[in-house]
Amino acid sequence: MENNLLPFLPMLYVAWSDAILDGPELEALSQKMQDQTWLSPPDKQVLAHWMDPDRPPAPGQMQLWLKTIRESAAELDEAPRQSLAELGVQIASIGLTNGERCLSPESCVALEQVEEALGIVSAEAVQSLIADEVRPLRPLLEREAPSFNIDAMQAILDRDNPDVKNGTRTILTEQIFAQRDFESLHDHREATLAWSRHLADHGLGSLAYPESVGGKDDMGAYLAVMEMIAHHDMSLLIKFGVQFGLFGGSIALLGTDPHHQKYLRDTGTLALPGCFAMTELGHGSNVRDLETVAVYDKVTQEFVIHTPSEQARKEYIGNSAAHGQMATVFAQLDIEGERYGINAFLVPIRDKENTVLPGVRIQDNGHKLGLNGVDNGRLWFEHVRIPRENMLNRFADVTPDGEYVSDIAGESKRFFTMIGTLVGGRVGIGLSANSAAKNGLTIAIRYANRRRQFGPPGEMETLLIDYQTHQKRLMPLLANAYALDFGLKYLTERYVNRTEADSREVETLAAGLKSYSTWNATRTLQEGREACGGMGYMVRNRFAALKADSEIFTTFEGDNTVLMQLVAKGRLTDFKKQFEDSAAWGMVKFVAKQATRSILEHNPVSVRRTDPDHLRDSQWHLELFHHREEAMVVAVSQRLRSLIRQGMSSDKAVVEVQNDLVAMAHGWVEFVILQQFLKGVDEMEQSAEKEILAKLAQLFALSHIEKNAAWYLEHGDLSGAKSIAVRREAEALAKELSGQALYLVDAFGIRDETLAAPIGLRG
Amino acid sequence: MENNLLPFLPMLYVAWSDAILDGPELEALSQKMQDQTWLSPPDKQVLAHWMDPDRPPAPGQMQLWLKTIRESAAELDEAPRQSLAELGVQIASIGLTNGERCLSPESCVALEQVEEALGIVSAEAVQSLIADEVRPLRPLLEREAPSFNIDAMQAILDRDNPDVKNGTRTILTEQIFAQRDFESLHDHREATLAWSRHLADHGLGSLAYPESVGGKDDMGAYLAVMEMIAHHDMSLLIKFGVQFGLFGGSIALLGTDPHHQKYLRDTGTLALPGCFAMTELGHGSNVRDLETVAVYDKVTQEFVIHTPSEQARKEYIGNSAAHGQMATVFAQLDIEGERYGINAFLVPIRDKENTVLPGVRIQDNGHKLGLNGVDNGRLWFEHVRIPRENMLNRFADVTPDGEYVSDIAGESKRFFTMIGTLVGGRVGIGLSANSAAKNGLTIAIRYANRRRQFGPPGEMETLLIDYQTHQKRLMPLLANAYALDFGLKYLTERYVNRTEADSREVETLAAGLKSYSTWNATRTLQEGREACGGMGYMVRNRFAALKADSEIFTTFEGDNTVLMQLVAKGRLTDFKKQFEDSAAWGMVKFVAKQATRSILEHNPVSVRRTDPDHLRDSQWHLELFHHREEAMVVAVSQRLRSLIRQGMSSDKAVVEVQNDLVAMAHGWVEFVILQQFLKGVDEMEQSAEKEILAKLAQLFALSHIEKNAAWYLEHGDLSGAKSIAVRREAEALAKELSGQALYLVDAFGIRDETLAAPIGLRG
Repeated sequence: MENNLLPFLPMLYVAWSDAILDGPELEALSQKMQDQTWLSPPDKQVLAHWMDPDRPPAPGQMQLWLKTIRESAAELDEAPRQSLAELGVQIASIGLTNGERCLSPESCVALEQVEEALGIVSAEAVQSLIADEVRPLRPLLEREAPSFNIDAMQAILDRDNPDVKNGTRTILTEQIFAQRDFESLHDHREATLAWSRHLADHGLGSLAYPESVGGKDDMGAYLAVMEMIAHHDMSLLIKFGVQFGLFGGSIALLGTDPHHQKYLRDTGTLALPGCFAMTELGHGSNVRDLETVAVYDKVTQEFVIHTPSEQARKEYIGNSAAHGQMATVFAQLDIEGERYGINAFLVPIRDKENTVLPGVRIQDNGHKLGLNGVDNGRLWFEHVRIPRENMLNRFADVTPDGEYVSDIAGESKRFFTMIGTLVGGRVGIGLSANSAAKNGLTIAIRYANRRRQFGPPGEMETLLIDYQTHQKRLMPLLANAYALDFGLKYLTERYVNRTEADSREVETLAAGLKSYSTWNATRTLQEGREACGGMGYMVRNRFAALKADSEIFTTFEGDNTVLMQLVAKGRLTDFKKQFEDSAAWGMVKFVAKQATRSILEHNPVSVRRTDPDHLRDSQWHLELFHHREEAMVVAVSQRLRSLIRQGMSSDKAVVEVQNDLVAMAHGWVEFVILQQFLKGVDEMEQSAEKEILAKLAQLFALSHIEKNAAWYLEHGDLSGAKSIAVRREAEALAKELSGQALYLVDAFGIRDETLAAPIGLRG
Repeated sequence: MENNLLPFLPMLYVAWSDAILDGPELEALSQKMQDQTWLSPPDKQVLAHWMDPDRPPAPGQMQLWLKTIRESAAELDEAPRQSLAELGVQIASIGLTNGERCLSPESCVALEQVEEALGIVSAEAVQSLIADEVRPLRPLLEREAPSFNIDAMQAILDRDNPDVKNGTRTILTEQIFAQRDFESLHDHREATLAWSRHLADHGLGSLAYPESVGGKDDMGAYLAVMEMIAHHDMSLLIKFGVQFGLFGGSIALLGTDPHHQKYLRDTGTLALPGCFAMTELGHGSNVRDLETVAVYDKVTQEFVIHTPSEQARKEYIGNSAAHGQMATVFAQLDIEGERYGINAFLVPIRDKENTVLPGVRIQDNGHKLGLNGVDNGRLWFEHVRIPRENMLNRFADVTPDGEYVSDIAGESKRFFTMIGTLVGGRVGIGLSANSAAKNGLTIAIRYANRRRQFGPPGEMETLLIDYQTHQKRLMPLLANAYALDFGLKYLTERYVNRTEADSREVETLAAGLKSYSTWNATRTLQEGREACGGMGYMVRNRFAALKADSEIFTTFEGDNTVLMQLVAKGRLTDFKKQFEDSAAWGMVKFVAKQATRSILEHNPVSVRRTDPDHLRDSQWHLELFHHREEAMVVAVSQRLRSLIRQGMSSDKAVVEVQNDLVAMAHGWVEFVILQQFLKGVDEMEQSAEKEILAKLAQLFALSHIEKNAAWYLEHGDLSGAKSIAVRREAEALAKELSGQALYLVDAFGIRDETLAAPIGLRG
């Protein structure tokens, strides 16, 4: 900006900031500015442009002004409190010899007269302009030097896609993404759409699509982008995910080449905004029983999409209330009265002018607890006709004369194959939830290294991070975030490289890690908010949005409790298979017995050892996790078998042991995460990073052993004294790690512009 | 409303609802209405009044119209979807002989022409008018008949103040309280102020004040009002609590009669809106070290109130950003350079025209995560002078010539006496948090009795309440809410009747129950939201506000983690006192040894008994809770003593055992709650209500034994098999209670108008 215009900056910002001035008032103000005799003609031209009532400045422009003002004000010893003009003059005078001012006293008076034309209470305006703590109030206190290289650690976390991650991080610092407050639901949604378009313009929307339609065929890169967006804004994440992941993904994975050629390019550029219309009011988790029908009309070779009841309306459909023009609709296929199960169909819902098409009814879901940048809505179809070609026919098709054809024989297998391909959404949510958790940890841990409270009389108050309760609250969650990072990378890799042979296993993994990660994020953000006290309650410190937006992660893309039962089912199937494969019953009994034998029987010494070397031994940790998981599978299987033998239906029996199933699924997920974390660390060459990662793995293990201590004690795997020793060792480890916590969150690589919480900035 | 005007109702509501019409358009529409030949002159007059562009209908009026429309529409077999006029005619025709209509066909056509003047898409308007699920979508399914009398149960819960509670419930159904959505922060705050005034007009603000100033001297009644307001809206609760409880309470409890006479009447009517300015930016929990100073000027006999640093600004002060005219300011008293610790002063901050007074600076805290109806702000004082009489001088005073006088000798004791009197806020928050938890339980349990998902093939899907995971999720929390109800009533009674002798004990109790209740509410609302899935995420189903508004309860009125340390300190002091009182060291050792001996040593049989009779035996439960609490006190004392003997300072030693202190405090609070619950049930005469309450107490006990199982196992108080049996018994109890859950939440007595969540209405 021209230096001559700097004195106007505070007034310019205030004039536009709250839409307090109407057209004529803006014109009057602009005229006053033009009257300033000390301005050059080009300066006046720029000013006139900025004050044009018909062309308000873009939000990005406004943010830039604000940033300039605040950064400049921070450089002043004491920013003036009474007038915007004086603030402007002082900002413009920065860098001049001490005491010198950029304007003559006469010009200053003239400038003050401009401010009068603005007609607002200047002192208040100055306050809200500069005093809103965009900069952290207190410096971070580094209690000890980093024991490892932060960049090297970030490189470890970024190892899957370093360039995509850094590229996305940089894009997200562009001015367009700086706005965080919205006047209305409408503004929030439009901004979120504009952001999504911006990301699409950068080519990020089509990364996972085939190269033939402008994509890069790189699902891993696409997921890395989601992981980064989640650090910034979760409305954007979901809008982006619905458009490119769910809608585009359904075309890519359930459709065939003609669909790809016809729709995917426009989907990737957001020329064709779309929805993923699966969930129905009466059928949230139970997709297989949803009621929308697609009746094939042989005469016209069309499908007739219809909502037969109120329970069958499509519900919470993202991108539908305002922007979607097409929807992938999941419906029961009906050919001449015969039902052929759930299939997916592309149904236009709005025309290019965004007018809702005949037969389609859309209602806005309205305000939600969070994610209000996403336009969720309800959809009803009243005998809407679509051409036969709009059926996504990768797994099944209907011939022109109404024959249902599929390479997959059973309806059940077909359904699960179809649903299974869509598991990418769960991978993305798992990754995103961990990003949200990392944001919360970064804010809370930095705040804990700034904030002091209470302490010995006469001394400086104690830093929050030095309190044992604070360490217990945050350090195990920091370990979880690191552990999950390894677990989720393993899932991503398995997902990206999945084959038909291991697809069920990948689904189990995705269900388990999505649940663990989203529950962990909810808990981390709750603890993080509480750890920041009243500061955590202020919207500008970001917990409000982080908590509210991520709240639904435990529900959508599969309700966690339902998913954990899916995991349990997967594990029981594996166990049964082991049984089928082994020739003799006796063998099974032996395996089962081995699993349920306590560690005590295996190794009576290890149950009692309480020395730190042993307590931190990762082989012991892994053995304990593994043993528990196996023993739980065996125990639940035996309970189920016994209930069924007593004459209970298997459905009833499953409900009867449901809590055990969920506990068993938790045990398995925890085992997988620890296993992958340890494997990752083992494979690294010796380094300071490896060393501290190993400590994080120890804390992850010990805090989970502590959480599950009752089970281990019940089964004789821990003595009472050892259980207490585990708790003490976890405490000691948490204390050890607390001095490095600041650097461990730095390594998450969240830019200050993205984190945006004043109390949590690196500064 | 006149029956003749009913046909206009839908149009009237839509015309005003979104401010879509401007003045001339409203006039044109009004003219069209006046042209209806079938209307009588008085009817036309009423219509003209309702359509007056200069006098928009009050929100209450609008709500009433909407209620009438929706309730009427619900009575129609099939409400029309295409026209507001037709909807109006059908509403007006309800009750007429089948098929008869209130208007002639000609008049109907004329009415449709009015609708054309409205100029909106009628079908959409009709939809949003009647289809917004204000009524529950599905009926509640009562799986079994109530085993007890719901009214009798409500009477048990209301026993402390039945009339006040029912009176407040009824007041809160008045139209003024129906509005829940606000265009802006400003509107929300103004509405909250108006609601507070309305409650004050009903005399609820001054209930706790002396009769001499218009009060009823009834703290119990005041707390009962808070408990009821919390069911409705927590912004109102806090606005009300800040004004009448904190500001008024500080005058009543820290001031003397002249202050009462001068200020309390206006405080109780809200003629004098005030703030409670204790917290400072740098000193949230650590009140004793706050920095604001009050320097006594002997010459003018004034105090000079001053904010010496940015850290000393008063922060998050409720009622200060918009409405407060006076503040109770806590400051370090300074007389001629000598410090006399924290004292409280009445400082005017705004004049009657609401202009901020000279020397006072106020900044808006802006948007918070929740409670946005409360105007929190920051306050700075620049050498503000107040007369000597404005010192609240119940516990200490300054004579005109600058002598500090007090009946309480030590500064520390004075400080804690003063702070101790303010403990009522914690009692109120504890009660309110349980009200919020009850709201969440009511919504989630009713939804679980409506919603079906999955189930055996060919059968009806299973009700959520019949899933074991759902029972485990909600039933122990239902038991907690009941248990807390008894615990909090005990606290309230102790608080209301406290004397100097037991005031410290009451403070410990308040700190512990406030923490338990607020953490429990946070957890209950989280589980409740998740148990309602996507429906729980919709703002209209209330979890958004319940969660966000109550989120800060764990932080304000004392951070929970800090309060739990206060509890622990109280318990350690008691233990030490026991030691001082007993003549011989040997005696102490004996007591300590008794406490730490495991139940096994006391009674080897009971450690292994796993029959249901024993597992549900409340004497055994109480013994177990009590034993654990005592043993923890002894263990922590010994750890502390040993650390100090090793040469550690006592401050450091306390930090070293902080986690144990907090765990011990939890153990004590749980013991007190169970004790009071059992005592309450024991004292009742035999009845069906007593029977089910006893079951709830069993579930409370068993679920807490399960939670603390590791400790009991570590200390030999449970065998492994018994620990597993406890888990199974809790499962069985949860299932037993799930059939009665619907009636147990009915007994909370939350009116449908207050609960307002469509999925949670009794209907």
